[in-house]
Amino acid sequence: MPWTLAPRAHRMNPSPIREILKLAERPGVISLAGGFPSPQTFPAEVIRDVAQHVLRDDPQKVLQYAASEGFAPLREWIAQHLARDGMQVDPSQVLITSGSQQGLDLVGKVLIEADAGVAVETPTYLGALQAFTSFEPQLLALPCDEEGTTPEGIGLAHRARFAYLLPNFQNPTGRMMSSTRREALVRAAQAVCLPLVEDNPYGDLWFDDAPPAPLAARWPEGVIYLGSFSKVLVPGLRIGYLVAPKVLYPKLLQAKQAADLHTPVLNQRLVHEVIREGFLDEHVPSIRGRYRAQRDAMARALECHMPNGCHWQVPRGGMFFWVRTPEGIDTAALLRDAVERGVSYVPGAAFYAGEAPVNTLRLSFVTESPERIEAGIAALARAMRAYTATGARPPKRN
Amino acid sequence: MPWTLAPRAHRMNPSPIREILKLAERPGVISLAGGFPSPQTFPAEVIRDVAQHVLRDDPQKVLQYAASEGFAPLREWIAQHLARDGMQVDPSQVLITSGSQQGLDLVGKVLIEADAGVAVETPTYLGALQAFTSFEPQLLALPCDEEGTTPEGIGLAHRARFAYLLPNFQNPTGRMMSSTRREALVRAAQAVCLPLVEDNPYGDLWFDDAPPAPLAARWPEGVIYLGSFSKVLVPGLRIGYLVAPKVLYPKLLQAKQAADLHTPVLNQRLVHEVIREGFLDEHVPSIRGRYRAQRDAMARALECHMPNGCHWQVPRGGMFFWVRTPEGIDTAALLRDAVERGVSYVPGAAFYAGEAPVNTLRLSFVTESPERIEAGIAALARAMRAYTATGARPPKRN
Repeated sequence: MPWTLAPRAHRMNPSPIREILKLAERPGVISLAGGFPSPQTFPAEVIRDVAQHVLRDDPQKVLQYAASEGFAPLREWIAQHLARDGMQVDPSQVLITSGSQQGLDLVGKVLIEADAGVAVETPTYLGALQAFTSFEPQLLALPCDEEGTTPEGIGLAHRARFAYLLPNFQNPTGRMMSSTRREALVRAAQAVCLPLVEDNPYGDLWFDDAPPAPLAARWPEGVIYLGSFSKVLVPGLRIGYLVAPKVLYPKLLQAKQAADLHTPVLNQRLVHEVIREGFLDEHVPSIRGRYRAQRDAMARALECHMPNGCHWQVPRGGMFFWVRTPEGIDTAALLRDAVERGVSYVPGAAFYAGEAPVNTLRLSFVTESPERIEAGIAALARAMRAYTATGARPPKRN
Repeated sequence: MPWTLAPRAHRMNPSPIREILKLAERPGVISLAGGFPSPQTFPAEVIRDVAQHVLRDDPQKVLQYAASEGFAPLREWIAQHLARDGMQVDPSQVLITSGSQQGLDLVGKVLIEADAGVAVETPTYLGALQAFTSFEPQLLALPCDEEGTTPEGIGLAHRARFAYLLPNFQNPTGRMMSSTRREALVRAAQAVCLPLVEDNPYGDLWFDDAPPAPLAARWPEGVIYLGSFSKVLVPGLRIGYLVAPKVLYPKLLQAKQAADLHTPVLNQRLVHEVIREGFLDEHVPSIRGRYRAQRDAMARALECHMPNGCHWQVPRGGMFFWVRTPEGIDTAALLRDAVERGVSYVPGAAFYAGEAPVNTLRLSFVTESPERIEAGIAALARAMRAYTATGARPPKRN
């Protein structure tokens, strides 16, 4: 064939999760695998109403090319909203992105060259691993405890271009960093001059208390902050944003322009029209209430059904439980039997930058009802017991 | 500062056209500068109606995450539509992109490594130069005549990763390749095993005859084809697509997934709902009629007003005239005086990959009425005569 691939293309791989989801998406299977928010939280009628308004009142602007920076009133709203979390942001620092996944791509494009170090949590968000890998970094898996990365880990990463951190209800582990930890991490990063990329898609989905102030509030010039409307409104409009130190903003903007000119105006206008008058102040608590009840159901079910030797933390927000099974269980091998018993999950190995243990798994509690969560966890426990009883991957049925 | 940029970021630059447009967008100035389609062609009511349907009938799917490949019925429609142009495309080869600008970014990401050769027309589309430059190629400016690249030029580019060509009503020159030229180019490319990237945003905007079959129809396995709904429907929804040889598709898909997960579902559904029953069969001819009248007005005005020594071709479609002025005129220096006289255009130097002559300019005929086009060209001619009379950049007024 006449085509020659760039070396980076050889490092790109299909998402293992997408392949798993194909297996798991049989009708009737209780899905604890997906990372999708519950569609029952989508305010479809509100969005339909504002679509009428903006397409009637301002069609020529809504449907035309527009500025790469994004819709100015939305950038202003975001800057004001972040002030609640202690961030002092000028709207000129806000760049609207096509989902926060694009923010990861732009950050990678501007900061990562081949063999540059990039430090990530262990485990970490798979989509970030995919975005960064396109730019051929050396990924450095930071040692982590139940709050995430440790200050000592940050010290070890001093030669990296940046450390990528998810302080709030991390995907996949659900863990959250305390204020003390955040403060210590920022001091450690400053000491070794290691900039941070802070990803916060789940921060508003807290069930008990609001999380501490973001890392970006503690070190504005050393942190790129990524946010999203995917988990608090809808993901399908693909509206995310990044907040960049002023010195970096022009390069991220140029990368955005080269990547797709601008994020669709209609989508930005829809989000802005929905949220501008305080809609999220009522809407987000309703999502929290729904997810909290489902989190509680999953916590009870795990407590009740999981075999000895399984470990998990109860997440204080977000969408996921992370379970460490006894070492004899390979969760990728277990999945087929679990699906046959009517429940799906995501084996944990895909979320690791370095060596990956085979005995972890991620459970989402946002898509299913409390009753189905209870039934799903019971089925998962039965699959585990059968697996342990045979001492290996169960024989293939049929 | 703690940040270290990747070398590619040093090669990114703000778009010179954006800067020019800021100067040119004074109220009252006749805009022959923009590359935006006429908003008077946007079918806003139709889009508003289908927005009601899809948000009422299928909100949970329209607003949820979705497949990176794009909305399947839209991919099928595109494959069928391209059959009209002689392309045999399976829907599985179609990747929906966030505007065709994203197609250029994905192609660059998958095919260009640092110092790899990329051959481009002289001059060529600025957005492609920006997208490719992010991946640090050696750009090779192909010699061109009034049809674009020559077969001899293609032969010289045999060591490049690909040649990027716009056969239909190219931005910025408006030129079109004959069928004979297309055939010769494809044979020359095959002879040296040089793959092609064919960009076709303007192909449906023909005024006299439909253009010959695309390069991709003549060499399916050697051509990536980029298309867009920006010029025949609306640009603000950001729906484009690429058609890739089957061997390349998986890598482009993985690059798409890492870049932004997927293009917004609502936008894809809106486009599909609008076009599925043949809407474009009536709509595109109405755009052609409008633009043809404006092209004719600009052709007449240029004939009537341009000073001796100016050269241009009358484009047979698309959006642009390309004018070569006498060598003494620096069109970047002329712009200020032209804007003061009430007309804007884009100096041509930004469109060159290599050495750029200073005496070219691009004129868009799609935004202004025939009357304003006539007045704008007359003002431009006055600015040129004043410039030539003083023999240099006119003195700054104010």
